[in-house]
Order: sequence, then C-alpha cells, then structure tokens
Amino acid sequence: MVKINENFLKLKKNYLFIDIAKRLKAYKAENPDKELIRMGIGDVTLPLAPVVVDAMKKAADEMGVKETFRGYEDSGAGYDFLRNAVSGYYKSFGVNVSPDDIRINDGAKADCGNIVDIFGDGNTVLITDPAYPVYVDSNAMSGRKIVFANSNEANGFAAMPDYNVHADIIYLCSPNNPTGSVYTKTQLKEWVDYALKNEAVIIFDSAYEAFISDPKLPRSIYAVEGAEKCAVEMCSLSKTAGFTGTRCGYTVIPSTLVVTASDGSEVKLADLWGRRQGSKFNGVSYPVQRAAEAVFSPEGQKQTREAIAYYKGNAKIMAETLDELGIKYTGGINSPYIWLKCPDGMNGWDFFDYLLKEIQVVGTPGDGFGPNGVGWFRLTAFGSRENTVEAMRRFKELLKK
Amino acid sequence: MVKINENFLKLKKNYLFIDIAKRLKAYKAENPDKELIRMGIGDVTLPLAPVVVDAMKKAADEMGVKETFRGYEDSGAGYDFLRNAVSGYYKSFGVNVSPDDIRINDGAKADCGNIVDIFGDGNTVLITDPAYPVYVDSNAMSGRKIVFANSNEANGFAAMPDYNVHADIIYLCSPNNPTGSVYTKTQLKEWVDYALKNEAVIIFDSAYEAFISDPKLPRSIYAVEGAEKCAVEMCSLSKTAGFTGTRCGYTVIPSTLVVTASDGSEVKLADLWGRRQGSKFNGVSYPVQRAAEAVFSPEGQKQTREAIAYYKGNAKIMAETLDELGIKYTGGINSPYIWLKCPDGMNGWDFFDYLLKEIQVVGTPGDGFGPNGVGWFRLTAFGSRENTVEAMRRFKELLKK
Repeated sequence: MVKINENFLKLKKNYLFIDIAKRLKAYKAENPDKELIRMGIGDVTLPLAPVVVDAMKKAADEMGVKETFRGYEDSGAGYDFLRNAVSGYYKSFGVNVSPDDIRINDGAKADCGNIVDIFGDGNTVLITDPAYPVYVDSNAMSGRKIVFANSNEANGFAAMPDYNVHADIIYLCSPNNPTGSVYTKTQLKEWVDYALKNEAVIIFDSAYEAFISDPKLPRSIYAVEGAEKCAVEMCSLSKTAGFTGTRCGYTVIPSTLVVTASDGSEVKLADLWGRRQGSKFNGVSYPVQRAAEAVFSPEGQKQTREAIAYYKGNAKIMAETLDELGIKYTGGINSPYIWLKCPDGMNGWDFFDYLLKEIQVVGTPGDGFGPNGVGWFRLTAFGSRENTVEAMRRFKELLKK
Repeated sequence: MVKINENFLKLKKNYLFIDIAKRLKAYKAENPDKELIRMGIGDVTLPLAPVVVDAMKKAADEMGVKETFRGYEDSGAGYDFLRNAVSGYYKSFGVNVSPDDIRINDGAKADCGNIVDIFGDGNTVLITDPAYPVYVDSNAMSGRKIVFANSNEANGFAAMPDYNVHADIIYLCSPNNPTGSVYTKTQLKEWVDYALKNEAVIIFDSAYEAFISDPKLPRSIYAVEGAEKCAVEMCSLSKTAGFTGTRCGYTVIPSTLVVTASDGSEVKLADLWGRRQGSKFNGVSYPVQRAAEAVFSPEGQKQTREAIAYYKGNAKIMAETLDELGIKYTGGINSPYIWLKCPDGMNGWDFFDYLLKEIQVVGTPGDGFGPNGVGWFRLTAFGSRENTVEAMRRFKELLKK
C-alpha cells in the first residue's frame, strides 16, 4: 500500500496566503458592495517596465521563427546572457559574484523550498522567527528538526546568533519578510562567523535587496567576508521588477562553498544543487529570461527603480501615519514592509478581522509568520499611492485615541 | 556540521543528456569543421505556432499596463482559462478530466521529480526499464527502494505487471520514452488492476500522447476504468506544441484518488500535492499560460498538429530505412522515438561514438536509460526533414552489409 509522507499531516492545512484569500472570498461574498484595500499579500501592483515587455515580445517573435527558435537549454542553469547580467547587477553595488555561480530559476520560492533536497534529514535547521512560511514548511515536510532564533521587539526584529544553540542550516532574510528589519554588515558578519564556526550553511533570502537605499547596508550576504564559504543566496525579480506573475529569480552558490560528506570527501554544494536541478528542473522560459535580462539593462534599471521609488514613497506615508498614531513598527525605510504592533493587545488575526470589518483594509496577521509574530501585523507598500493614502486616512480615523 | 543528502553521491554524476552534451562539445572542439546531425536529445526544432506567439505577445502587453497587469496567482494551480482549455482538450479525445483536478506546471519534468515529496520514503517504487532517467534519479535522491519491470525485445519493450512483485508507486510512460512502444487499452487496464490490487499509485507520463494517431490506442490513462482511483497523469506541451524552451505542462490528480494514512485517515492525494506546490511553487508565468491556452484553440490545434505530422513524417522515413537495413526497432508510428537494436552486438555508447565519428549523426545510447537499454539506441523524429533524410542516407551507406 502506498505510504504518504506523513510529515504533511503535521503541517498547517493551508499556506498562509491561501488562508487569507479564503477569508477575503468569504467576506466579499457577504459584502459584495464593499471595496477592499489590499495591503496584505506582498504582491506588486505596478506593471512591467516597457523595456521588459518589449524584450519579452521580441523573444516571443524569435520563438516563432525556425532560425531563432530555442528549445531546451543545455544546462537548465540559465542562459549566459542572463547570468552575465545578474553578475553585472551585483557588480553595480560592489559585490563580486561569478556568472558560473548563478543559476536562474522561476522565482526564489521554488528554490527556497527545493534546496532542502540536497541536505540530509539529520540536520538541525535554524530559522529566525517570525519568518516567511516556506522556510518552516519545506523543512517540516521533510521532518527536519527546526530551532528558532527569536526576532522580537527587544532586538528590533533582527535575531542574532546564540553560540549555545547549534545549527547546521540557517535561514536568514534581509530586508526581512515580514518584519522589514535590515541586517547591518556587522550583524551579518556575526551570522557568517557563527555559520563558519558551526560548519553550517546559510540560506540567505535577499528578495527585497532592491529596497535598500542606505549605501551602508549590505544588499547581498557576499558583501560580508567569509560568506563565500558558507552562504547560498536566493533572490528574485518579483519585487525588484514586478515579476510576481512573470516568474524569474536566481540562486547563487559559490564554487568555494564546500561541504564534507560522511566518507570524508569534499563536495561542492553547487554540484549537488546542479545535479538536483538537472533531474527535477528544465530551465526558465526563454522569453521570460530575455525579459529578466532587460531589467538589468541601463534603461531597465532606470524604469524599475522608478517603481521601487514609488513603493518606497508609499512606505514613507505609512510610516508617518504610524508615527503620528504612536504605533510601534519596524521596516518601512529600506524595505517594502511595515511590521506594526497591533493596538490594544489584539492578536494578528483579531486585528485582521477588525481592519477588514471596520475599514476594509487587508493586511497580514503576524501570527501567520510564527510565534514571535503574535500581536504584530504586516502591511506592504506595494499598493497604489491612492489606496495607500486612503488606507492610512482610514487607519487614522479608526485608531486615533 | 551540515550533512548533505548522501543519496546524491550514489547517483551517476551527470544527468544523461548533460553527459551527451559534454561528449559533443569535446568532439566539436576537435572537429570544428564537422557538421553534426542531432537526433539525440528529444528536443523539437520547429518554431512555436503563430497563434501561440501572438497570444504570448498579447499577454506581455497586458503585463505592461496597470489595469491588466497580473501578479501572483491566488492558487498557483494555473489560471482557470488554461485549466478549462486542458480539460476541453481531454474531452476532444473522449476523456473526462475536471478542470479542478488539473494543476498547470512549468513542464512535466519538474512535477515528475517533485511529486516524490508527498510520498513516504518507505515505498517500493516500480519503474519500467529502460526509462526516462528522472524517475529513477528522483527516487534514488530520496533513497527509496526501486524495483524494475523489464521492457525488452521479447515483450516489445512494453513491460507488464508481475503479481509476484509488490510495488507502491509505479511509473509508466506511454508512448514510451525511450522505446516508442505504446500500451494498448487492455495492457493499461492490466496495470490499473495491478495498482488497485496493490493499493499503489501510478504516475503516468503521457508527454507523447499527441503522437498517437491510432484511435484505438489510449492517449490518457483515464481512458481506462479504475484509473481515476489510482493514477496521476503528467503531460507537457513540450512535444505537443514545441514548448521545450517555453515551459508549460500539467498534472492531473483526480479528487477520487484517496490514500489511507497510518492513522487510518483518508487523504486526497491532490490535497497533499496542492500543499506541496503551495509552499514550493508559485505558478507559471502568465504570458506562458496564455501561450499554452492558444495551443488548445481550434486554430492552435490546427497549427500544432501540422508540426506533429511533420515529425511523424520523419519517423516514417527512419522506420523505412531501418526496415530496409533489416535493423530491429520499436516505435516510430505513434511515437516520435525510434528504438533500435545496435548492429554487430555493439553497446549503446560504442554505437554512439561510432555514429558520431563515422557519419556525425548524434543519437542517444540506450544504456543511459537502464540495463535493458544496453545494446539499444534511441533516435528521435524531431529533426528537420532535410537532416532526417541525410542522416538516413548516411545510415544506409554505413550500415548496409
């Protein structure tokens, strides 16, 4: 008789955002006339940049002509044109990443989840809490031991390593989803030192790096010395260039990241990942890769940076409102997320329902991101200016004492 | 210290087609002036159909306008327009599949590999041999016990169930890659009966169904009664519509496929897969889904069927040549693959090198698909007519007695 992976039965039934979508559907069914302002799921709202659209259309045309048609990629790691463009992008903010160490993917989420395949089940996984649910879920699915590092009000929602806790795999996300906190270079160096001491691997999620405007803050873990020996970095164009529905990202595994197998042999982690992807992935759509390449062109950078500036303008309006209301929060400066303390001791789901019912503003309950998120709430800056202003007007009206 | 998944060290170092690519690269480096005729990897050569290109460009334009921009899909299972189109496609050849039971993916390979996540490691996996390497590799990566059902010359490379062998998960592929053999409805029914008896799940790879022109042969396992209780079906547009570089496919898990967990609870397999994909996948690029939808439109069907007819014409030329040479083979009629017995007792890699050196024709050594493939060789019909004719001319010259 076929046996299921019973770890699945221990998971929460639904992925957080599917839960939220269901609640909204129910609310809309009961209140068909109410217009919701969605500041919940981290989806973008501005369209793709014109150069990106043009590049995709040009590539679609190429696919329609025998001479320029492209089938399977030889390696499935991404076309050189895109890996070179990503490497050049890193260079633009002073970080050296070889194109050979980059693999193109269909978004960071898949790689974040799938990378667990190359690690043994006996590893202890450290996850900062609260966290993006994928880190916990994908390790819980394979039954791994998970320990948490607490991100909380006291440490500005930026958990730091504790040498009394042992970990083999460490998930970090900066700028953080959901808390909007950003690690300084000194803080990241502490994590790298801790990983090297533990002979651990860091999975660094840099999906929001494009929101960092403070030049002193690191946009990549490879800005920190030693990271090339212990860290994998995953990034995505979802937030950098509005690719949430277009699907493209990249994973960096430096060739210098070497792990010792039980027989004493040294294995490049990138080789394991390449073997995994060689069998379970077949590369990203060619027109999507051309669209992604266009993001990194000078004109693409100009156009996509305008969208980011727009979202950052939203974040500023939200931060000012919360300041005015005297509500505590993190994020909102070098991040598209604002992480706020629910008023009157409400928990996140209570506050979710309260905002939905009273002012039809949708956010994300911090409780969905882990125990340290209870009583906190995530708002995103990805809405329109108009909606952001209106949501904040309603916030002020509802929450002013 | 981080532990790797040691199962990876037991795998062959490279995915078969990466091995071949390396050999070809070496040959080209030494013989830069020689033109290769590639009949090896199963990649298509005809461009995307005009309606498909137009649909993708239209969708790209939508992505560039705020009002029609699309971000994340709510479910990640695929847009309704495409799931409905796939369901309608099934209906066109007399098979009922509900759109609710379909999930859109970025090609069958990923789902074929990733589906193992939802099954316990204690399952015995049955794979017909020779087979597409992904079935073996993805189960070997998770350390599962694998048993093989022999496809060989005696049974026309169409292995049948043996009730003395127990299996929990069964991989079948028809039309078969690499052997080109096609199961009849009666044969498939035997497998379904065996699966039901064993309370096993069949993973049915129907990637080549579009090449079946004999109306008596089943294009889906759901043409067989009982399959809706034991079979998952995976298909792809790679071969149906030349999507090898565009990346789109679909997986069907009927809601009637229920598995019993160790606590006696009944679990819909589709729910487990949905939970897995909800955490580790974020849906297929919107313009790609629109391109896929166009494949299933009346005009899309007309245009893509022309390409398939062209490839089938190639297969016919190959089959006739082998007939003339008195070389044994399977496939070539309702399949894009021809699986031939290497002459003079050569093994597949010897024959690979022999063809490469003597006539610069590239095929795939049967040895790469498993023990029963030793001494056999796969040719594909996906080349151009001109190359196919020329390759067969060289074949005749080289191999005639």
